[in-house]
Parts: sequence; structure tokens; C-alpha cells
Amino acid sequence: MSKITAAIIIIGNEILSGRTKDSNVNFIASLLPEAGITLEEVAIIPDIEDRIMQKAKEFSAKYDYVFTTGGIGPTHDDITAESIAKAFGTEIEFNQEALEILEDGYRKMNRKINPASRKMAMMPKGAELIDNLVSSAPGFALGNVYVMAGIPEIMQSMFKSILPKLRKGSPVQSRQVSILAGESLVAEALSSLQRKYKHIEMGSYPFKHNNIHATSLVLRGDDENSLDNAFNELKKLIEEHEIIT
Amino acid sequence: MSKITAAIIIIGNEILSGRTKDSNVNFIASLLPEAGITLEEVAIIPDIEDRIMQKAKEFSAKYDYVFTTGGIGPTHDDITAESIAKAFGTEIEFNQEALEILEDGYRKMNRKINPASRKMAMMPKGAELIDNLVSSAPGFALGNVYVMAGIPEIMQSMFKSILPKLRKGSPVQSRQVSILAGESLVAEALSSLQRKYKHIEMGSYPFKHNNIHATSLVLRGDDENSLDNAFNELKKLIEEHEIIT
Repeated sequence: MSKITAAIIIIGNEILSGRTKDSNVNFIASLLPEAGITLEEVAIIPDIEDRIMQKAKEFSAKYDYVFTTGGIGPTHDDITAESIAKAFGTEIEFNQEALEILEDGYRKMNRKINPASRKMAMMPKGAELIDNLVSSAPGFALGNVYVMAGIPEIMQSMFKSILPKLRKGSPVQSRQVSILAGESLVAEALSSLQRKYKHIEMGSYPFKHNNIHATSLVLRGDDENSLDNAFNELKKLIEEHEIIT
Repeated sequence: MSKITAAIIIIGNEILSGRTKDSNVNFIASLLPEAGITLEEVAIIPDIEDRIMQKAKEFSAKYDYVFTTGGIGPTHDDITAESIAKAFGTEIEFNQEALEILEDGYRKMNRKINPASRKMAMMPKGAELIDNLVSSAPGFALGNVYVMAGIPEIMQSMFKSILPKLRKGSPVQSRQVSILAGESLVAEALSSLQRKYKHIEMGSYPFKHNNIHATSLVLRGDDENSLDNAFNELKKLIEEHEIIT
């Protein structure tokens, strides 16, 4: 099975200025391994048309799927839809289906839709809608680029509606063991194991456990058999150290 | 005063796999505005030599400062030093000063340094050390690229030691007001204000306050006078709405 790849573009001055801490990357990243989709790269860029266009084109050509978050609200700084349209040589127009969903959403809140809100239905020609179960205003997909809201709750709703429709690869599984030893003490063992199991990604992550140096060792791969074999060998290699979890 | 720019490269499979939630971007991003340095872009990439080399070269050419986090520990997956050396056409060697700091750190813990730990003193020729007050193993700077640890506590110590040495721009300040109104209701006012004050960055960020639509309006700029003028005008434009903070 060929590898299926993805990238994320976080569009947000508020992340780059330090005002807001992004949590969208981790949400998307956590759900991709079980779908067998490899997250290859993340870019966080400002709300600037040229930058959005350039990054969307680059990632769309390089990776199977591109997920963007941010910049699809009703205010002047929400320029993602127009930038994505320009990136792929098309224009934005009122998406009739999106407009109906928006008007319906406002009707249910007993509010009248205003021009700023109607702007949220301006989407590239040929865009397909992405459901938003939180606040009605939909996201959209254009080709392999999936354009979602920046607000985590809404983004999560949108991403969950996209995920079942994506092409899947072999699920990537992981095995993890944490030991009460600094990582330099297991570096050589892990390195020799990595040479033996080249297709398993082996990571070593130091942390403190009751103020003592500790290390999490993580093996990741899509072949469960060799993953288990490698993990069993790893446990033998480190049996001199106390296991925490 | 010319604009001073920066970019961050987060080197980490553990972030891309969803295992770990990055917090280094927000820490660095929060400290740059007061130094008058604009964070232009963040890339999160895997522990792969070519990818690190390519991104370091790209960002080093585009921006005044590049900060990297991750991949400078003692294990086989720690390849940042070697990759950065190759990116800039040099090699890694034992940095004598770094080795002494490491050996001293181990002596104080009453532990013997092993080959894996000594690897942490392998740095590009010509590298300048970055202090690590947490766990001794230093980071390094090569040209405009500052290479730091991935563990947040250590990265923070390293970044704080770098920051005073960087060239500063005009500090960017912000003014913020949050109102009890959905952002579409202030979109037009904010848009007209943005047209008047082109050099002030105006952002609108929706949130829920006691389950009611609310909006934070943020103005950012390096000219305090025009920032205050714009903020006073903004407050008049939105005076019909209840202010939360």
C-alpha cells in the first residue's frame, strides 16, 4: 500500500503573535495515524493573501491532503477563501448551498443575517461543503485542500466529518515503554535496534519522574508483527532499568 | 527602523504523530513582540536530515533569525546538529567548550559521561554555545540559526539566554477589548477602521461567554500614538455592545 501523506496550514496572526496557543495541530495529528495517513509538515503563516496562496499551492502539489484552519469568519481579516480560490486559478462566488445553511442557522437563532455573515458563504467555484455541526457556517474543500475554521470546537466538528471520506493507508500503531533512566543510558541499545528494524520509527523522549531522569521509548510502524517483535527485543535490552509505565 | 523577522522550525516526529503537544511555539511567539521581532512563519517537520537541511537553508535566507527546537539529545534520532552543519556546508566536530560543560555537569551528578552523552558536544565547526541552566548540555548558534532543545523547560532557559543578544526592533504593543456580540455585528466597523489605520493589524476573534457569542477585538502596532487613537475610535464604534473585558 502506498504511503498517504498530509500537511496542515495554520492561518493565524493570533498564533504568530503569541496571543493564542494553537491546539488544532495536535487534534488533527492525533487522528491521522489510525487512518494510516502520515502528517509530513505543518506551516503556521500570517493572514496574508500571497503567503496563503503560495503555501496552499506548495503543499497541495507535495502532499495527498492539505488541511487549513483559520480565516473563514465574517471579518475583513478572514481572507482564506479568496486566497485559496486565487491559488488554484478560480474565483469566489456565493455558494448557494452554504448561503441556505447560513440563513437557516440564523433563522433558528431568531436573528437576521447581515452582509458580513453572508460573506461566509463566499467560496471558490466548485468547492464542496464541509459540515459544521457547531455554528452552521460550513467549511469547504477545493481539490485536495480542506478549509476549516480556526476555533477548535468548530474545526474538530469539521475534521470529524472529513476524516471518514479520506483515502486510508495502513494504520500506524505504536508501542511505548517508560523507564527510570536518562536517555543516554539506552541510546546504544536503541540505536542497534533501529539498525535491525529499519521500517520502525524509534523515538526517545526524556522527562523527569519525581525529579529523576526518565525516558519514554516509542516504536511506531504499520506492521504489527515486526512492531511486536521489536518491542519485545527492546524490553529485553532495557531490562536492567526500572519500568515506570 | 527596518522590520526584524524570525521563523521557528520545530523538529519532531513526536509532534507530527500527535504524541506530544507542542508548547515551544507559543513560548517564543509570546516573547518576540516586545523585542520588536516579527514571527513570520513556523514549520513543524520530521526528524529527517534532508528536510531539516532544506528548511534551515530556506528560513535562514528569508528571515533575520531562525530558532529550531528538538533533536539535540544523545540518541540516534537526534540529528539536528549534523543536519544544520550540512545545510551550511560545514561539519560537526567535538566542541571543546561544550564537552567541558557536559563533563562538568556529569561530575556534579556523580555520574560518568558515556559516548552517547558525549555526542551532545558534537556541533558544527564555528558554532557558538547557547547556555542551558537546566541540564547543562548546551544548544548552539550557527550564523542566524539558533539550535535549542525540544524539552520546553530547557528550551525556555536557552531562549531566555539568547533573547537579550538579538537585534531589537520597535516593540509591538496591543490593545484589546472583548464585547458581548458576534463578530459579524462589528465586522463593518472594524473594516472601516482598518482602512483608516493601515499600519495597525486588526484582528477579530470569536468566542463564547456564558454560551453567548462574544468577540475579542485586537489592535497591534509599533506606534503607540496611532494605536491609542485607533483604539479610542474602536471603542466609540462598538459602544452599543456590552463590554466583557
